[in-house]
Amino acid sequence: MTKPRARDLGIPFEGTPGTHNAITDVQGVTVGYATIIEGDSARTGVTIIHPRGDDNHEPVFAAWFPFNGNGEMTGSAWIDEGGFLEGPIGITNTHSVGVVRDTIIQWQVEHNALFQKWSCPVVAETADGWLNDMNGFFVKPAHVMEALENAESGPIEEGSVGGGTGMICYEFKGGTGTSSRKLPEKLGGWTVGALVQSNFGRRYQLTIAGVPVGQNLKEDAPFTSGENPFAQDDGSLIVIIGTDAPLLPHQLKRLAKRASLGMARTGSLGGNGSGDIFLAFSTAPSGVSGEMMGNVSYVHNDHLDPLFFASAYATEEAIINSMVAGEDMTGHNGFTVKPLPHDQVREVLENYKRLDGRQKAEAGK
Amino acid sequence: MTKPRARDLGIPFEGTPGTHNAITDVQGVTVGYATIIEGDSARTGVTIIHPRGDDNHEPVFAAWFPFNGNGEMTGSAWIDEGGFLEGPIGITNTHSVGVVRDTIIQWQVEHNALFQKWSCPVVAETADGWLNDMNGFFVKPAHVMEALENAESGPIEEGSVGGGTGMICYEFKGGTGTSSRKLPEKLGGWTVGALVQSNFGRRYQLTIAGVPVGQNLKEDAPFTSGENPFAQDDGSLIVIIGTDAPLLPHQLKRLAKRASLGMARTGSLGGNGSGDIFLAFSTAPSGVSGEMMGNVSYVHNDHLDPLFFASAYATEEAIINSMVAGEDMTGHNGFTVKPLPHDQVREVLENYKRLDGRQKAEAGK
Amino acid sequence: MTKPRARDLGIPFEGTPGTHNAITDVQGVTVGYATIIEGDSARTGVTIIHPRGDDNHEPVFAAWFPFNGNGEMTGSAWIDEGGFLEGPIGITNTHSVGVVRDTIIQWQVEHNALFQKWSCPVVAETADGWLNDMNGFFVKPAHVMEALENAESGPIEEGSVGGGTGMICYEFKGGTGTSSRKLPEKLGGWTVGALVQSNFGRRYQLTIAGVPVGQNLKEDAPFTSGENPFAQDDGSLIVIIGTDAPLLPHQLKRLAKRASLGMARTGSLGGNGSGDIFLAFSTAPSGVSGEMMGNVSYVHNDHLDPLFFASAYATEEAIINSMVAGEDMTGHNGFTVKPLPHDQVREVLENYKRLDGRQKAEAGK
Amino acid sequence: MTKPRARDLGIPFEGTPGTHNAITDVQGVTVGYATIIEGDSARTGVTIIHPRGDDNHEPVFAAWFPFNGNGEMTGSAWIDEGGFLEGPIGITNTHSVGVVRDTIIQWQVEHNALFQKWSCPVVAETADGWLNDMNGFFVKPAHVMEALENAESGPIEEGSVGGGTGMICYEFKGGTGTSSRKLPEKLGGWTVGALVQSNFGRRYQLTIAGVPVGQNLKEDAPFTSGENPFAQDDGSLIVIIGTDAPLLPHQLKRLAKRASLGMARTGSLGGNGSGDIFLAFSTAPSGVSGEMMGNVSYVHNDHLDPLFFASAYATEEAIINSMVAGEDMTGHNGFTVKPLPHDQVREVLENYKRLDGRQKAEAGK
Repeated sequence: MTKPRARDLGIPFEGTPGTHNAITDVQGVTVGYATIIEGDSARTGVTIIHPRGDDNHEPVFAAWFPFNGNGEMTGSAWIDEGGFLEGPIGITNTHSVGVVRDTIIQWQVEHNALFQKWSCPVVAETADGWLNDMNGFFVKPAHVMEALENAESGPIEEGSVGGGTGMICYEFKGGTGTSSRKLPEKLGGWTVGALVQSNFGRRYQLTIAGVPVGQNLKEDAPFTSGENPFAQDDGSLIVIIGTDAPLLPHQLKRLAKRASLGMARTGSLGGNGSGDIFLAFSTAPSGVSGEMMGNVSYVHNDHLDPLFFASAYATEEAIINSMVAGEDMTGHNGFTVKPLPHDQVREVLENYKRLDGRQKAEAGK
Repeated sequence: MTKPRARDLGIPFEGTPGTHNAITDVQGVTVGYATIIEGDSARTGVTIIHPRGDDNHEPVFAAWFPFNGNGEMTGSAWIDEGGFLEGPIGITNTHSVGVVRDTIIQWQVEHNALFQKWSCPVVAETADGWLNDMNGFFVKPAHVMEALENAESGPIEEGSVGGGTGMICYEFKGGTGTSSRKLPEKLGGWTVGALVQSNFGRRYQLTIAGVPVGQNLKEDAPFTSGENPFAQDDGSLIVIIGTDAPLLPHQLKRLAKRASLGMARTGSLGGNGSGDIFLAFSTAPSGVSGEMMGNVSYVHNDHLDPLFFASAYATEEAIINSMVAGEDMTGHNGFTVKPLPHDQVREVLENYKRLDGRQKAEAGK
Repeated sequence: MTKPRARDLGIPFEGTPGTHNAITDVQGVTVGYATIIEGDSARTGVTIIHPRGDDNHEPVFAAWFPFNGNGEMTGSAWIDEGGFLEGPIGITNTHSVGVVRDTIIQWQVEHNALFQKWSCPVVAETADGWLNDMNGFFVKPAHVMEALENAESGPIEEGSVGGGTGMICYEFKGGTGTSSRKLPEKLGGWTVGALVQSNFGRRYQLTIAGVPVGQNLKEDAPFTSGENPFAQDDGSLIVIIGTDAPLLPHQLKRLAKRASLGMARTGSLGGNGSGDIFLAFSTAPSGVSGEMMGNVSYVHNDHLDPLFFASAYATEEAIINSMVAGEDMTGHNGFTVKPLPHDQVREVLENYKRLDGRQKAEAGK
Repeated sequence: MTKPRARDLGIPFEGTPGTHNAITDVQGVTVGYATIIEGDSARTGVTIIHPRGDDNHEPVFAAWFPFNGNGEMTGSAWIDEGGFLEGPIGITNTHSVGVVRDTIIQWQVEHNALFQKWSCPVVAETADGWLNDMNGFFVKPAHVMEALENAESGPIEEGSVGGGTGMICYEFKGGTGTSSRKLPEKLGGWTVGALVQSNFGRRYQLTIAGVPVGQNLKEDAPFTSGENPFAQDDGSLIVIIGTDAPLLPHQLKRLAKRASLGMARTGSLGGNGSGDIFLAFSTAPSGVSGEMMGNVSYVHNDHLDPLFFASAYATEEAIINSMVAGEDMTGHNGFTVKPLPHDQVREVLENYKRLDGRQKAEAGK
């Protein structure tokens, strides 16, 4: 039996998802994981996204946007400058960014996949230092290679997998989540997909479908409590947006920015400690060739709205998916995090008249 | 009788407002308006904010953040570079930014208020070209002087006043709105105020207190309709955040960024046509003197969360306030915009169990 | 007899200029001036650049770079965001930016040349408050219209014309200057042109062809002296780079950045008071149409070097040209500025073995 | 016998250096190296800069500026956002950034030197893939620890040491260089130091003291030749600026920007392939404490010029120092690079009347 996703619980979302409601709905995109759960203290891993799959090394146009730069996304300077993402994206825990970065280079060298004479890979992170012993440096080159090699298209796992393994979101179990939107043909017919590594937010902020769920589910919050109602927001959110819409780098920056709105739709207030960093890429042809010039299409600015909205919507749903997929986890020093309780969420949404009618009926069967 | 504000309708908001629930709750801040409603086509004006009142010309630390740069905020380059806002802020319609800018300089010269040998004033805009004939260039230097001179502290007008006169928000009447938050003493005790000029959004996006109000109130939307459900988002949102918290320029940029979250909390998806530009300033002493060095206090990064949250909350409420204060307006070419219908909003919120209990009781008297 | 330009004096420069050694060598670009020299105190004006001439309103890809944002370039937020420059560029004195901006809109409205429903024109400035009474606000809408209408291709005037009328550069007479580079066909064959409004630098910094000319010509420096050797650098430099090379917006930002290097080649150290702001645009087809998508060519990153170098070279030469074209000017409050003394410059270059051999021979005729 | 430095050759520079003419003239700064020269292919290493020495972990205000982002500086997002550099800076080759980064974290953990719960260290790079086999991944954690531990104040080595070991600059041997400027007391008396890792430029661009040295010394240029006069500029330049002047983060960004001018003074034209990335930090007290607020001094904007100029001057001299310290190196695949020939450089400067008179006399002894 497959795990339910947010929609399966009757949570309403805007827009129409693609086939798998995943970033892999964007043609060519593959996602790989290495999940490290060992002993008492290792709860971490690596997520890899190949924009064009692992055997097509043509660069893609890309851009990043740091809503809150309290984190890391290596390779961002060159993306800003050159407009290209020239290899796979890695996501891991904060203290393992380096090993993922260097190992991606090694993989690129082995696959003859360097685009310039050198490589500055994109590796982002969120801190899993509560469930995982981040200073144990458990991520090894072999894990990175594993994630690089096992990447797949189609439906992908969510929750405590890959880089998202030890994450916490709104004080429930967080991790990896994904979602997509497919535009109507008259609006271009393109797909926009999001993959998130969610590790942010305080319980009282959690909003689902506009409903103050967090304020209705105060139990089992590891950081905030009656004694400590103002716990600082720590953690981070990484969002990777992929699309097949032909967008130029400066337009992709705008797409990445809209992930901020998706994040806000789940209640985040952008706390100081939360490094919320977003990247968007387009798998449309980037015009790269051995010639002096390339040729590309791009969507005119006044047709971007549906793509922008899709970026916000897919980010929102991917975050909620990352939580819906959660399960109990106990890790480093016995720290325990509970998952989002599906039934109680349904109940709260029902109370606020926001449970999706159709889903409600199905659940009532 | 004073007009009701959003809270008076029973709309719930997070956090505790200051005395007037206005940007003027920040000690020293004054706001002035010139409202131009003449004949069939003039529906525009000028808003002025003096960070330290109109007779204290000490620069304030400031920073801006363009969530969507499809608009104008003159003077932003120097704010980015030098860290100071060196005079009053003006807000007007898109095609009158120049006259407001040059007239502010003239006022500064007359008041011996230039800080450098020259001045690059901050003037922002939103486009009122539906209700107002923006190409009529109705704003004259005398209007700017009027707004500069009549600025006051205490409660300030909202709705169709000043630069906000001809604005439209979520296809209801928009305009000028304000709100503030006062932090508990243990979190610093500072005040954060927001003043917005709201002119953005499509009806179906409008969210109030998390409730999909716009999807429940589809009538009288001038841009979207059954035939045109995907009307492009045009307009813009200007947000000015003031605080007495001692923040350095790079910290104020972060405060300004959180206005994005406040905007998102009202449902915006950041359409291409909406120039959403935010500025934050601090009225704390900026250390300016005739000496080589200055001395300033600043809030440590790990104590910024309450200020960030206040920026988002005050922005959200100021936007809703700008709409609640609206009244019917007919302008250029007979174009008409309806205000947010208070009773229907209450009804929708009631349906979704989000009407503030206390207010509900009062309304039932 | 035409005035000599920098090359005519035997000053050596790198690279090969276009036909007129002017920004107008870029096909389509026209430049117009209004020069205001009246009474004792009016020494100012307006410069207009039409990227595609005054009757072709197709937007051009563009980007800006503020090396030092102590100045103004209105319209830059939308250029950053949307990637397009949607009308003519204006340059004037600091306190007249507003009137130039609003008048450009009026001209656009009259010529049915608005690209969006509104316009946020690009107007930059440098401060002429020593020779000109900047607070006299001498620039009127009629001057702006004059410059908009009289723009021409071909050779253009330099020195104390247009916005550059009252400017001072390295404490010699500055103003408007231009230059261009034409790449060899094997490197693309494109043209890069620069137009500058020069109003920066202290005498001891002035370097021409690598020679410390300023340290050898200390006379008649109005700001620095034995008593005041550390006079603060005031003023500003505006550089507009045009090219017919097909470059995307993020690539044009890189082109604009290289104007910093051209500025540095004349000795500038980027003083706090100097608002050094650069903009680059491409007249190549920008793919704009009524369709959902456009199609454009672009130069691959690894073929950009010659364009980058041309941007630096043309900026350098345009600055020196702006000074070579100078003549004595006395203005506001009797303030007087001397021009760069041609013979003495030649003499200094000769001493340092940097006078161009061929020109040296010609001068010896 | 100590190796001569640029000044010892009679190359003239502006400004007055500190005691050691090194970044270590800034009180507290220490520099450590691990130099890896093994077999035929390993020519690389690690450079470490401790802003306050290796046993003072108080964060310093900092900012970065990517003149050309074709490279990497990890940790830059947090510096932009938070304003602090929270640990040592590492510089290495492009493909070893990750191992340096993760090892710095390990060192911080071992020394109880984490400032937040996590660390995002600053590690920059330049590509040594001609003399070094960058894909051999020769840098190991032990090398990083070595450089972290052996850091010293006082005079420091230059040339082929640390991260600069295998670098090439203007097609001569490049590497590590340093310089400093000490301001007169009346201008604040502060020290500004630069440390560079130089790996950029094409021969014909090389300018020393304004003299076209590269065009006079065309021999032994490995990349450009008669057949290939337009060789693309590859490589990179990293500049670290330290100062004891109390500057706020946004002011340090301006200081870092002026490194562009220092780079330009040596002839660079900012080629696409050269990732020119600069960082500036201040060792003045940063006000960090366990309290809610801190207190800091800062230099007023109109007193920044001498600091800006010092940044440009020290960068320029550090680059030339990095080359003057060079010696023949043969590495990977037998690739050989020659050093800057001291006598010929003196001869060229003498021809152009730019050899420092005093030094000339000494050399003539």
